[in-house]
Amino acid sequence: MTTISRDAKLVTFINVFTVEPTDQQRLVDLLVHVTETSVRHARGFVSSSLHRSTDGTKVTMYAQWRTMEDYEAMRRDPTPAPHLRQALAFARFEPAVYEVVDVFGTDP
Amino acid sequence: MTTISRDAKLVTFINVFTVEPTDQQRLVDLLVHVTETSVRHARGFVSSSLHRSTDGTKVTMYAQWRTMEDYEAMRRDPTPAPHLRQALAFARFEPAVYEVVDVFGTDP
Repeated sequence: MTTISRDAKLVTFINVFTVEPTDQQRLVDLLVHVTETSVRHARGFVSSSLHRSTDGTKVTMYAQWRTMEDYEAMRRDPTPAPHLRQALAFARFEPAVYEVVDVFGTDP
Repeated sequence: MTTISRDAKLVTFINVFTVEPTDQQRLVDLLVHVTETSVRHARGFVSSSLHRSTDGTKVTMYAQWRTMEDYEAMRRDPTPAPHLRQALAFARFEPAVYEVVDVFGTDP
């Protein structure tokens, strides 16, 4: 489970991958694999939530890390790198780093 | 607080707005206003989490609705519409509808 809160002071990555609909499942499988086997075990990893767009053209990863330094160390790790390169061979990748500004919910 | 879970069976919107960095705060203010005063009170609204990119060029709304019909009813509501049109005058808007595929966290 992932929780989004303004008070958590995490670094949030919302990374949008754009794919051909015929490649969407392949990208999901690849990202699940690399997260299960490697990324989730890295220092500073908090959570990663994988989303598929209902129109088939996007896969979006909502990820939380303790610090930017922890995320950058994971990106330098040679274990996930080949999988991420493989994804970029057939998916357009638009990464972005965020802070949570505000959260509105039905529960106060 | 927002919770992301595969089991929740919600409709997830990850809407990325792209802006000039000088307009980022203005867009945040506008989206906070329309959410506070209108969107959060709509039927089927579950949560909305607003994020600003640290590079100043994006504002991303992670929103959860009970059903697509509830979301579409809100979009037809004349109350939020002028604010959303105002946002689109200075922000590029890339909306997408998702389902949660998988969630990985440090807590089981």
